[in-house]
Amino acid sequence: MSIQKLFSAPLQVVNVGIESFKEACEKNGAPAVQVDWRPPVEVAPESEAILAKRAAKIEKANQKVMEIILAGTPKLVGLDVARNVIPGMTEDTILHAGPPITWDRMCGPMRGGVMAGLVYEGRAKTIEEAEKLASSGKIKYAPCHEHGAVGPMAGIVTPSMPVWIVKNEKYGNIAFCTLNEGLGKVLRYGAFGDEVTQRLKWMETVLYPVLKAAVAHSGPIDLKNLIAQALHMGDEVHNRNRAGTSLLYRALAPAIVATCDNKDDAVAVLNFINGNDHFFLNLSMPVCKATLDAARNVKGSSIAVVMARNGTDFGVQLAGTGDLWFTAPAEVPDALYFAGFTKADANPDIGDSAITETGGLGGFAIAAAPAIVQFVGGSAADAVRYTHQMYEITAGESRMYQIPALDFRGTPTGIDVRKVVEKNLVPVIDTGVAHKQAGVGQVGAGIVSAPMGPFAKAYDALAKILK
Amino acid sequence: MSIQKLFSAPLQVVNVGIESFKEACEKNGAPAVQVDWRPPVEVAPESEAILAKRAAKIEKANQKVMEIILAGTPKLVGLDVARNVIPGMTEDTILHAGPPITWDRMCGPMRGGVMAGLVYEGRAKTIEEAEKLASSGKIKYAPCHEHGAVGPMAGIVTPSMPVWIVKNEKYGNIAFCTLNEGLGKVLRYGAFGDEVTQRLKWMETVLYPVLKAAVAHSGPIDLKNLIAQALHMGDEVHNRNRAGTSLLYRALAPAIVATCDNKDDAVAVLNFINGNDHFFLNLSMPVCKATLDAARNVKGSSIAVVMARNGTDFGVQLAGTGDLWFTAPAEVPDALYFAGFTKADANPDIGDSAITETGGLGGFAIAAAPAIVQFVGGSAADAVRYTHQMYEITAGESRMYQIPALDFRGTPTGIDVRKVVEKNLVPVIDTGVAHKQAGVGQVGAGIVSAPMGPFAKAYDALAKILK
Repeated sequence: MSIQKLFSAPLQVVNVGIESFKEACEKNGAPAVQVDWRPPVEVAPESEAILAKRAAKIEKANQKVMEIILAGTPKLVGLDVARNVIPGMTEDTILHAGPPITWDRMCGPMRGGVMAGLVYEGRAKTIEEAEKLASSGKIKYAPCHEHGAVGPMAGIVTPSMPVWIVKNEKYGNIAFCTLNEGLGKVLRYGAFGDEVTQRLKWMETVLYPVLKAAVAHSGPIDLKNLIAQALHMGDEVHNRNRAGTSLLYRALAPAIVATCDNKDDAVAVLNFINGNDHFFLNLSMPVCKATLDAARNVKGSSIAVVMARNGTDFGVQLAGTGDLWFTAPAEVPDALYFAGFTKADANPDIGDSAITETGGLGGFAIAAAPAIVQFVGGSAADAVRYTHQMYEITAGESRMYQIPALDFRGTPTGIDVRKVVEKNLVPVIDTGVAHKQAGVGQVGAGIVSAPMGPFAKAYDALAKILK
Repeated sequence: MSIQKLFSAPLQVVNVGIESFKEACEKNGAPAVQVDWRPPVEVAPESEAILAKRAAKIEKANQKVMEIILAGTPKLVGLDVARNVIPGMTEDTILHAGPPITWDRMCGPMRGGVMAGLVYEGRAKTIEEAEKLASSGKIKYAPCHEHGAVGPMAGIVTPSMPVWIVKNEKYGNIAFCTLNEGLGKVLRYGAFGDEVTQRLKWMETVLYPVLKAAVAHSGPIDLKNLIAQALHMGDEVHNRNRAGTSLLYRALAPAIVATCDNKDDAVAVLNFINGNDHFFLNLSMPVCKATLDAARNVKGSSIAVVMARNGTDFGVQLAGTGDLWFTAPAEVPDALYFAGFTKADANPDIGDSAITETGGLGGFAIAAAPAIVQFVGGSAADAVRYTHQMYEITAGESRMYQIPALDFRGTPTGIDVRKVVEKNLVPVIDTGVAHKQAGVGQVGAGIVSAPMGPFAKAYDALAKILK
């Protein structure tokens, strides 16, 4: 084609790189196609070749992992107290969110949660005493994830705390999570003080026994089915749990009435659940934990089974790399901040709740919950776009969790670290944001991107193992 | 442009009429624009000119009507028994759905409902006795709508039936509706027999007093707010009421526990509501009735305040035409029929539930509830298309009821009969379908179009008044 012909024919643009150039072409009437290209991620020079060479083995391992994840049958089977049921829990153990961390590296809200937990346990009378004990070396800190548990935000679990027990009946494994405290001044956002302690005591002495009796009465509750319904009702079960909470409430209320002889307690428990649309979060999390834990230790698999943040580090674990954690600094979310707060007040990303994204829910299913995107200034189309992007980095689609706006397509499930690295496209997570100082609480919420660091490290580690 | 040039240039098609021609062009790579043109509706020759001449007066009246509709504040304020509260209700009165009708013209399911009602009231021991009484001339039949009430399907209200009381607090008017019986063999679908009678008796003696005490204890429940939430949770509150039922349940359960001293009754009531995701329909209907009734009798207005079907006739009332009914034969829905049933089994469209569409909900808000369209074989895009079409024939948009998939745009509200006729575009209604014989029950569900007849008559009548 001669230059003359080129410029007299209608312009047809294929754009690589900055997307605004494509948009400018379109604005001026020239059709343009965007090639979704990003610069390569820095990994070890030999990793890509090794993983390409081992592709068949990886695919086979991933198929096995995906089948385990998609076939999981997580059910609520009961409640108990942490010390009775969580493996390895001692009187000196405090579990926390995210990858392993020592007291000296803990962020403000996690320290606040630890101190609140020690006061709640009666191990300290004041926050000053609690801080002394917390930093004394007497307390053994360990990730929830290493004890079959998960916890939102600071993720603190102390021995006396009641926990939900979720069993993956198909594979027999179990996951635990504390009960959601509601909003306001709460331990999981690092708040402490009498209000926090009293609520935790009420949860231990009233909420827990009432719920325990009700669940024993109702029998196992199929949480996978319940989440599937909640996705048809505008939840993505991470930052929006109104439908999940409603459906759980419907399932539990008759059993609460049938088993609780103290009318005031029954009413108080119903009102407590009714007053907190995040109540279900502490069940969607162990649902994903129980589902993904069954897929651990499948040699060669490049699928993530954990994404978790301790407020200092962001950690990832793969099905194919055993108990290794791959970490990088957690980032401060670009969020919508509550009045009076800015990004400068925010703690870096924190909590085990990214287990929902790891399980194909949360940010991955956000097209089902456009209200969340609207809350942070976006549109329904943005929500659909986020979910569409996540299909790019996942190995499959849920057979049970569907997105109405995408004609009930299964949610993108099973993060493949190869796709994350090779496409330079990280998972999106929709999350709450904690104040960076202990004792303040939530300051915002938003849709954040995971850092690439942990995925790049996991990619190299998998290549080393498969070399 | 020469013929030669025309055929050598890329084809650009503007299509008027059958849409498949446009689609064929597109399939073959030629961009095409569809002009949304339909043949004119048959109305009196002078009507259009009169209404055009009176446009300013009509617009002013419609603005007043829309302000009343959009500003309504429907709240659940209590329950009572029909004979105590429904104006004009006597021991010989039976209310029914749709426009006025006599026994001899009633369809099968409506006759079934009437007979079931007479047995329930103890006015007849057998269905044969009931039929004799029903056709004797002793029973006074009247539309629910003429007594401030609405009823789904057959819409039968007898004196002993408990009713919800919904008050439009802003304007002081009240609407009534019976309690939803659930699925299976139920009076509203024209079923009768011991199972039907016993359930109605249980509703009168257990369900009603428990709910009455609970609502008295909880205080008025803001149903407009509740419906707004339900639309964010996948309901359109006509054929899908899972979220509405869940949120109502959450609001009522603590009050039921607090006020009901008989534990078995409390559990039975909670299980009854929990077992019926349509329970909320009998509240979304009087919400719309109370909202629209406040806008009646605004001279000159072309906005519909009622669409209702009695299974024989489809009736429409306008704000600007007083108590006149405009009717035409109700049509048999093109629905999805349950296994073993076909369109030949179906009764023509029946029920007052089209009051939800009249109020900007139901089929008008179906983009919020793609699950309904999927159920009848359509896609999420179809649901959006139905709602988009309804913006064409409505005068405004709800300020409270929003559709997440349309970036929380207000639902199309206030059917303008001028737009219906002049664009030849009728309202869509998503509805259940009853068997045409008394005593059988539901045979399907689908998305149906209202007949044009009543709108054409209303159009002419408005023109006559404004002449």
